[in-house]
Amino acid sequence: MKIVSVSGNISLQRDIDSGSEEQRKVVLNIIDDVKENRDKALFQYTEKFDHVQLESLLISDEEIKEAYREIDNEIILYIREAADNIRDYHQRQVKQSWMTTDQDGTILGQKITPLDSAGVYVPGGTAAYPSSVLMNVIPAQVAGVQRIAMVSPPQQDGRLPAGVLVAANELGIHEIYKVGGAQAIAALAYGTETITRVDKITGPGNIYVALAKREVFGVVDIDMIAGPSEIVVLADETAKASYVAADLLSQAEHDARASSVLVTPSKLLAEQTALEITNQLEALPRKEIAEASIRDYGAIYVTETLDEAIETVNQLAPEHLEIMTEQPYEIIGKIRHAGSIFLGENSSEPVGDYFAGPNHILPTNGTARFSSPLNVDDFTKKSSIISYSAQSIQMNGSKIAALARLEGLEAHAKSVEQRLGERK
Amino acid sequence: MKIVSVSGNISLQRDIDSGSEEQRKVVLNIIDDVKENRDKALFQYTEKFDHVQLESLLISDEEIKEAYREIDNEIILYIREAADNIRDYHQRQVKQSWMTTDQDGTILGQKITPLDSAGVYVPGGTAAYPSSVLMNVIPAQVAGVQRIAMVSPPQQDGRLPAGVLVAANELGIHEIYKVGGAQAIAALAYGTETITRVDKITGPGNIYVALAKREVFGVVDIDMIAGPSEIVVLADETAKASYVAADLLSQAEHDARASSVLVTPSKLLAEQTALEITNQLEALPRKEIAEASIRDYGAIYVTETLDEAIETVNQLAPEHLEIMTEQPYEIIGKIRHAGSIFLGENSSEPVGDYFAGPNHILPTNGTARFSSPLNVDDFTKKSSIISYSAQSIQMNGSKIAALARLEGLEAHAKSVEQRLGERK
Repeated sequence: MKIVSVSGNISLQRDIDSGSEEQRKVVLNIIDDVKENRDKALFQYTEKFDHVQLESLLISDEEIKEAYREIDNEIILYIREAADNIRDYHQRQVKQSWMTTDQDGTILGQKITPLDSAGVYVPGGTAAYPSSVLMNVIPAQVAGVQRIAMVSPPQQDGRLPAGVLVAANELGIHEIYKVGGAQAIAALAYGTETITRVDKITGPGNIYVALAKREVFGVVDIDMIAGPSEIVVLADETAKASYVAADLLSQAEHDARASSVLVTPSKLLAEQTALEITNQLEALPRKEIAEASIRDYGAIYVTETLDEAIETVNQLAPEHLEIMTEQPYEIIGKIRHAGSIFLGENSSEPVGDYFAGPNHILPTNGTARFSSPLNVDDFTKKSSIISYSAQSIQMNGSKIAALARLEGLEAHAKSVEQRLGERK
Repeated sequence: MKIVSVSGNISLQRDIDSGSEEQRKVVLNIIDDVKENRDKALFQYTEKFDHVQLESLLISDEEIKEAYREIDNEIILYIREAADNIRDYHQRQVKQSWMTTDQDGTILGQKITPLDSAGVYVPGGTAAYPSSVLMNVIPAQVAGVQRIAMVSPPQQDGRLPAGVLVAANELGIHEIYKVGGAQAIAALAYGTETITRVDKITGPGNIYVALAKREVFGVVDIDMIAGPSEIVVLADETAKASYVAADLLSQAEHDARASSVLVTPSKLLAEQTALEITNQLEALPRKEIAEASIRDYGAIYVTETLDEAIETVNQLAPEHLEIMTEQPYEIIGKIRHAGSIFLGENSSEPVGDYFAGPNHILPTNGTARFSSPLNVDDFTKKSSIISYSAQSIQMNGSKIAALARLEGLEAHAKSVEQRLGERK
């Protein structure tokens, strides 16, 4: 792994894959087709792209039962415990509606309401993770969303992965459709005979899914466009190189485009970690992927001081940040940008990926500068409440009319003056 | 104004203007040009589109002083009072970071951090409103955003409207640039010699601005893509037709594509309101705009019952909702979708547009189903905090490793087991 001394500006940001014009046209055609031909288009694209002829989009009770036969009972208990932890953490995020009253009779407030419905995209292939089902669905349930629909592309045998079905069923999700790609996003945004449209679509997917989400943004809400995953470890000389290396590799095995970075003022730790990475790589079943990721997107940055290392972390704005220093709590306040912060040597990233409670759907590619882990607020919306009394409009009406006239909006002024006139 | 009896499904939703392919190409070219030629491109596009040759993009102290000479002192006092009200309301939205501790040593939490910087787009022409400056900037300031940059297209005399400059100066905003259109959005997203890039861009604009915001989404965050404005009045037989008509017209004067709708179970109120609209229209300086809006996008829906009227409102999911019924507070709980809710006959929409405190930047075109008024949360982001103790990793490590292996991610399992091995 390459070791680089840094002091100036660096960035993890890879170019956002915004797709080719060709891919965009394909996606626009699929969306138009689904808007027009609805279910029929869904069956056709599923045959074309997933190479399977389905009789029904909706998952049956029998398929759920079959899934349970494939998954170990012990694993099911772990999934339940993880779900409990995730639910507990997210329940602490719930916000209350509030109001404020004034002696002149004015009442102002903010009403918080769950979305009516949400659509969750679960990617297919090797990325079909039961944990992603928990992380997507639970915040929506805690927010109070009444209807949650899940979509996922079928395997060639026409089924969905057993772990995904078990996780969904454990959460009480019954609306599960075997459809993926841009066609699934179009169905969730516009509705078909089988799939009723939703208000918001969350969850990552391939480039066609990302392009489709970007296109339907505004018709429905979407979460962020996900990029490849990344970890930054901030460590000083007290950190164990074997831990640092293992955590960097756990990120690297995800994807050849994943990025694993160590930032440290300790040259010794840098060298030991590089060595450990080479050694630990050998034993990994996904060695090729991890090796390519470390080669192309991995780095060890050595700084002069710990403060410089912290500033480097802020420039990277990583999705996952592990802090393995002598006093990790002294550093939190200086971290301005990070999706999820793991403190101390026992908090390895998989603790948060699966089990601890916080969400693992996180801002990637430097977007932690301005976005957040998926959370309960993402599945609610706010409404302002304004209630003026006769006294408050009498007191303030002429000021409001004057401000309206400054902007040349006479009917605005008159609408207020209607209320004043009668009492003159 | 047309009166329609309704019972089935209705919708305010107009097609989202997603622009032509031609417009999209223009915008992509502008963005590329600004990325490459930076300030030089900004000056060129300003000359081309705004027909003015600037020497400097940054507003000078002299221009601010000049603006103050144009605005009435009384108006400045009203602007200050409005700003105080807006600041007070938004301060009540501020969220605290939190944490939770467990006896096994686990600490979980959520850290809330303001964005480093925000860019505010203030449209030009007749839509250059001082009130929009207050509504855009104050939530960012309350959130704690350190750097706020404002952009707005110059008038042909090379200046910005006095009201806009005064409002900005009252808020202590000094980074004000005379540049608009897609080129301003590109500058805020990618940076130039003069304009440093920001983390988030808010504020409405024309179709080129909307397309540019959509393109840079992901590089920076953006607020919603704004559509034409709308009001729905929900009223029963106790409402005054003259108030209802005046409020519908105050929306209609904004834009020929604005939509003004009355929903009522009272046929009498429907007829009286239609008559009032015809009468009040005559006196309006923006009569042509209001008349076209009422004709093309206005409607009075008459329902059988008040509950049906409420359900119709939910289907419309309006930006502004006025409730003028005998008991408005009994209805709030039934309203699932609305940007801003105005209660009772004294709460006319301009009260919220200018003065009361809640934001006037609201979700349009049915997007109140899933989005919120601009608020303090829009200018902060969250980071999860996960801190496992030696005890908590010992208790849970093997479960986490099992869940990782279920997903085929061996390096994830090993990263946890590194922590268990030593203590065996």
